[in-house]
Amino acid sequence: MFHVTIRKYQGGKYGRNMEGCIMPEITIKDIAKQCGVGISTVSRAINNHPDINPETKNMIMDVIKATGFVPNNSARNLKRIDAKSIAVLVKGITNPLFSDMIKVIEEETQKKKYSLVLKHVEYYEDEVDVALELVKEKRLRGIIFLGGYFLHSQEKIENLRVPYIFSTIGTAVPENISRVLYSSIAVDDRKESYAMTAHLIGLGHRNIAILSAESEINSIGQLRLEGYKDALSEAGIAFNERLVRQVEDDIEHYSMENGYITAKKLVESGEKFTAVFATADILAVGACRALLEAGMRIPEDVSVAGYDGIDVGKYYNPAITTVRQPVKDMAKTTIKLLFDIIAGRKSYEHIVFPAELIVRESTGTAKG
Amino acid sequence: MFHVTIRKYQGGKYGRNMEGCIMPEITIKDIAKQCGVGISTVSRAINNHPDINPETKNMIMDVIKATGFVPNNSARNLKRIDAKSIAVLVKGITNPLFSDMIKVIEEETQKKKYSLVLKHVEYYEDEVDVALELVKEKRLRGIIFLGGYFLHSQEKIENLRVPYIFSTIGTAVPENISRVLYSSIAVDDRKESYAMTAHLIGLGHRNIAILSAESEINSIGQLRLEGYKDALSEAGIAFNERLVRQVEDDIEHYSMENGYITAKKLVESGEKFTAVFATADILAVGACRALLEAGMRIPEDVSVAGYDGIDVGKYYNPAITTVRQPVKDMAKTTIKLLFDIIAGRKSYEHIVFPAELIVRESTGTAKG
Repeated sequence: MFHVTIRKYQGGKYGRNMEGCIMPEITIKDIAKQCGVGISTVSRAINNHPDINPETKNMIMDVIKATGFVPNNSARNLKRIDAKSIAVLVKGITNPLFSDMIKVIEEETQKKKYSLVLKHVEYYEDEVDVALELVKEKRLRGIIFLGGYFLHSQEKIENLRVPYIFSTIGTAVPENISRVLYSSIAVDDRKESYAMTAHLIGLGHRNIAILSAESEINSIGQLRLEGYKDALSEAGIAFNERLVRQVEDDIEHYSMENGYITAKKLVESGEKFTAVFATADILAVGACRALLEAGMRIPEDVSVAGYDGIDVGKYYNPAITTVRQPVKDMAKTTIKLLFDIIAGRKSYEHIVFPAELIVRESTGTAKG
Repeated sequence: MFHVTIRKYQGGKYGRNMEGCIMPEITIKDIAKQCGVGISTVSRAINNHPDINPETKNMIMDVIKATGFVPNNSARNLKRIDAKSIAVLVKGITNPLFSDMIKVIEEETQKKKYSLVLKHVEYYEDEVDVALELVKEKRLRGIIFLGGYFLHSQEKIENLRVPYIFSTIGTAVPENISRVLYSSIAVDDRKESYAMTAHLIGLGHRNIAILSAESEINSIGQLRLEGYKDALSEAGIAFNERLVRQVEDDIEHYSMENGYITAKKLVESGEKFTAVFATADILAVGACRALLEAGMRIPEDVSVAGYDGIDVGKYYNPAITTVRQPVKDMAKTTIKLLFDIIAGRKSYEHIVFPAELIVRESTGTAKG
């Protein structure tokens, strides 16, 4: 014989019903599904918005009562006054890659009842200086660096007396600093860039131009350039410096505009090429536009490859072949690691994520 | 007779030279220009990075000494401990429009020595509830709402005891609340949407589908839909409800993916149309992809128009006709107004910016 228990949500990630059985949390999505309406409609019912049919509202409120659902508003997650905070320092905000990461980081930070301080760092600023000043802020418990490159001295880094994680995406790991001093989360840029270049070589390309966004030692841009050289060297193709095109220094490095200008200059240089490897999708979009305007067909006349795996590459015409970084997983791991370090459960960690080569319409066999 | 004075920068936005004459601030850009190098190179010289030619470095340092330039690192702008803060609440972070705005807001906030708290609001959350909790945070001096729609009661709004600005871009101004209680900065969405629809009608289109991201009363989406109806009505074209396509409710409303799915469903519905007006460029990109995949040529078979004026529309293939919002000016005005209110120089203001219709490759005369 068995009997029915009305399940009531009791708070926490997992509630216990009246008999003490652990049960999954009921979410607003579950309510919406059960009512056969959208999440916004459930939200309007809960928040007494006038823009809802009264019958629908009653039906939804009945279901909410029956399930014992407690709206998990972020408002209710923020009861503390003077919450502790963590800071995210972002270099290169125009890269949409970072929006995706920041969103995840913010959500996870909120769950921990911390507030998030966002700080953009201009590409000519020294991010550790910026961080050193931020640390004076008493409530700051940790720092995440997104983007940028690091040539800072160990002494300077040691002055950062809160936990911090270099990287995640788009940040080169400093090699001149003891690895126990910091944490890092990244993909292996040299290896992934090698893979993309090898893919283009496999399609018969020998004159492959590369658009690079950074010229600094140890920068992501340089690591990707090294991977490109590795692949050329392995295939016995001579390295041609004139096919390495640095983006413009005086406008935002990672931007469609910079990809456009840099590719346009490449075309105008008269240098021969059958493929362009743009080391960021956002550059690849601008480059495609410049090549199309020059009367070249993609991929019939020229192949274009990107890096990052942001949305626009998928929806561009043609869709752009890329190296996809697992942005959300990387962001989740970053914030989890930071809180582990803050809580004293870990001291440091270096995690390398695998990326994925995604072949789309913009690459094909070399002409000729 | 006149004599030469060595100009020395003495701090502040304008320095005074030794004779007390006000002179413009010397920036890192000026130094870079004078040295004939990029800003990054000047930065490397200042920060003792190893990746710089020693001669170049000496030359730069000499120029710096001669001009009296003081590096204006954000670090030095942040001397205060426990800085006061302002919060930005963002609904719809995937819209790149907001990245551009947040960047400007952050820069201006930093100049005022305030810190910026960034908070994403999920589309089903009530942003005023989120704001009410944030206000408990003692250091918070003001709030900017980006995105979202407002159906909140005057009582609730009155509880927000810090200055706040509804909107700027992508936020409908609440009509049910006394206008002296809040400030707003926006474009006239109804009027601008009317202009775009009238442009399409002028090209001979009569069956114009519209992709709308919000169905709530007073939302930006609804204002844009009203403008569309105004234009149809003026031209004597019957309104066809089946050509109004709401985006999917359960994925991010303003996203390329949602534009793609919604346009795909439009095509599959069999409803006749010769133009698609996507009420955000980010939706237009996804829509273009769906139409191209369905074998339609743009603009030969179908015209596509967007809204917002973000970069991707300019570099897409084909480049997308749009209504450009003056994002940077709007962001600057927003933050200036907020600080004026905080300082007691103003109590409230409602500013409407004009937008600009930019005709690109994605729209053409109607087929037929």
